[in-house]
Amino acid sequence: MSTEFSTQVVLDALQSALPPRHAFLPLHEPTFSGNEWTYVKECLDTGWVSSVGKFVDRFEEDLAAYTGAKRAIAVVNGTAALHICLLLAGVKPGDEVLMPALTFIATANAVSYCGAFPHFIDSEEKTLGVAPQKLAAYLDEITEQRPNGCYNRLTGRYIKAVVPMHTFGHPVDLDPLLEACQKFNITIIEDAAESLGSFYKGRHTGQWGLLSALSFNGNKTITTGGGGAILTNDEELGHLTKHITTTAKVPHRWEFNHDMIGYNYRMPNINAALGCAQLEQLPGFLSAKRELAERYRRAFTDIPGIRFFSEPANSQSNYWLNTLLLDEECAGQRDALLEATNDAGIMTRPAWTLMHKLPMFAACPKMDLSYAESLERRLINIPSSVMLGTGLSNA
Amino acid sequence: MSTEFSTQVVLDALQSALPPRHAFLPLHEPTFSGNEWTYVKECLDTGWVSSVGKFVDRFEEDLAAYTGAKRAIAVVNGTAALHICLLLAGVKPGDEVLMPALTFIATANAVSYCGAFPHFIDSEEKTLGVAPQKLAAYLDEITEQRPNGCYNRLTGRYIKAVVPMHTFGHPVDLDPLLEACQKFNITIIEDAAESLGSFYKGRHTGQWGLLSALSFNGNKTITTGGGGAILTNDEELGHLTKHITTTAKVPHRWEFNHDMIGYNYRMPNINAALGCAQLEQLPGFLSAKRELAERYRRAFTDIPGIRFFSEPANSQSNYWLNTLLLDEECAGQRDALLEATNDAGIMTRPAWTLMHKLPMFAACPKMDLSYAESLERRLINIPSSVMLGTGLSNA
Repeated sequence: MSTEFSTQVVLDALQSALPPRHAFLPLHEPTFSGNEWTYVKECLDTGWVSSVGKFVDRFEEDLAAYTGAKRAIAVVNGTAALHICLLLAGVKPGDEVLMPALTFIATANAVSYCGAFPHFIDSEEKTLGVAPQKLAAYLDEITEQRPNGCYNRLTGRYIKAVVPMHTFGHPVDLDPLLEACQKFNITIIEDAAESLGSFYKGRHTGQWGLLSALSFNGNKTITTGGGGAILTNDEELGHLTKHITTTAKVPHRWEFNHDMIGYNYRMPNINAALGCAQLEQLPGFLSAKRELAERYRRAFTDIPGIRFFSEPANSQSNYWLNTLLLDEECAGQRDALLEATNDAGIMTRPAWTLMHKLPMFAACPKMDLSYAESLERRLINIPSSVMLGTGLSNA
Repeated sequence: MSTEFSTQVVLDALQSALPPRHAFLPLHEPTFSGNEWTYVKECLDTGWVSSVGKFVDRFEEDLAAYTGAKRAIAVVNGTAALHICLLLAGVKPGDEVLMPALTFIATANAVSYCGAFPHFIDSEEKTLGVAPQKLAAYLDEITEQRPNGCYNRLTGRYIKAVVPMHTFGHPVDLDPLLEACQKFNITIIEDAAESLGSFYKGRHTGQWGLLSALSFNGNKTITTGGGGAILTNDEELGHLTKHITTTAKVPHRWEFNHDMIGYNYRMPNINAALGCAQLEQLPGFLSAKRELAERYRRAFTDIPGIRFFSEPANSQSNYWLNTLLLDEECAGQRDALLEATNDAGIMTRPAWTLMHKLPMFAACPKMDLSYAESLERRLINIPSSVMLGTGLSNA
């Protein structure tokens, strides 16, 4: 029996899971069906659109309450969130930061902003994220412990942190990763940009790291236009995060004093207003997304050579971007599938180009990346908007 | 005759220039009296709030048309704009960048983000900005020319750029500054964060620099919530600016390739929607601000020891933040005046703490800063919102 599928069979399966529509179907578009309008109008009516205003405070409190983190600090986007997480974790120029080769560019860029070097690590099939056991074996081989922490014996550089990324919302296997990091004295910073609403062993992602980054870009599960947040369970770090992301100004009735090099990374109030309204709807959004995922799962059950990626064991995923995985022997069909689906008005896309293949990161250290390379050949994201799960179309 | 004024006389003068009001009067609050609502609603109705959408393109085109610059690139705030201006001007780690000691923290922070050192220079009374003749004399004394440009003989560092800042909207004396920079081979980057709507010799500020930075923070003449823009008359640099501020992604139907270390500095569409509506009203805003400035000028004409700062010769200022200057012998009264006005519900504030007095910049090179230090002692900003000039109050 051939493991090959025909492009038409895949198209039919996609159509069967999707509501009827007449317009091009993007990968992920936002739904504004709650209080967005009311809250944004309140900003305009009161004039509080910018750096001061109640919605920033409320959004931070609501995020902390939802995720269970002690502090949430709203910032201008997910990249800024990652940058500050790394900076406050103590990443210094010349250090190395372990991160998956299979991730969005922001993870690697944020490491560069600190003057540090990304060090690329492999992923695993069961989560699409960092492979903890393979990482531990690799660290055993290439690192040595010195009084202040973990060093790469090959480059001589300090390995300060690892940044697991919860790919398309599916949680990394965090417990064995935590164990490995404790053994090797490496700080975890979670790139939770894609995983708002995703839980690992019943607890929201973003709490295994010392600090973690969320994103509310327009294509995310909830959006603030552009925006992000930093989560932490360390009160003191939370305070410092707020301080350094708001120009490090020392509070005073009129004096302008700043006590460190700070960043203008604060989220404007008008964007936080959107965020408050979106967050109110998150439980409904997640139900709709899980409903859509279930429809996809059923539609692809019996097609040989291709499968729908389901949430890892022990995890509840937000199914941010739904994912198809081709069998290795069908990887050659990927581009024809991308072509056919996009031509048919159903937006699909492959994995991001692996980070070590980009010119600016080509010289960075890396472990064997055979699994990430296989995933890159075989992975396709398919439309995942909330409205598709509620049966509404963008027609 | 004493040059001392009484606090009550100053309070009476302020009240006489301001419309009646019942609430606390901030330094600068926004006015949303145009199409803000319509455009923002269009974003929500269409779902285009984020990184893609027509308002970003339109805002950039409208800004270029208004300022006369060939290209305007909208970004997330003025600090991000300054960072990219410096980066694309070629500022490298270890370089020095000349900038006024009398400025907002963003100018110095942006230099730090490049790994470069701020080198603080003095201001002059007639513009409140960089003193070109004093700077030229100083450069004559401390620099030497090498094949690739200007070097500080004292530190051995490359002096790559100077960042004149148009203080409170009043244009720096740009022609003699340009002449000095040509002589010494130093690139100009204008910090025009405060000067949208300000013209020097009939031409909009931001066009003497290779690149220039605008800000649309909530306290600026027009606001996008948080936002900024980069202006340039160099088409190629304009293209590169757009590329590097939008993650340096190479356009493709579905592939994710990036060809350099980029930044996530794009302005979200919902913020640009606000900007389009605000920019439509700019001429009216400027008239109102000039009307308020004229009322202040008249109110302070006959008070000894204190004067209202009027726009420099050859310039038309946006009067972003109106400014009072005490005579040197009255400087001791500044804090009592700040106390009394803020207690009376009229927000006032002194100049920013000079940059070289902040702990993180205390070791940076500097010239004689006697004039900036005098201004710091004597300067008070007073309420400047558009609505105060149209006779509307925030009551």
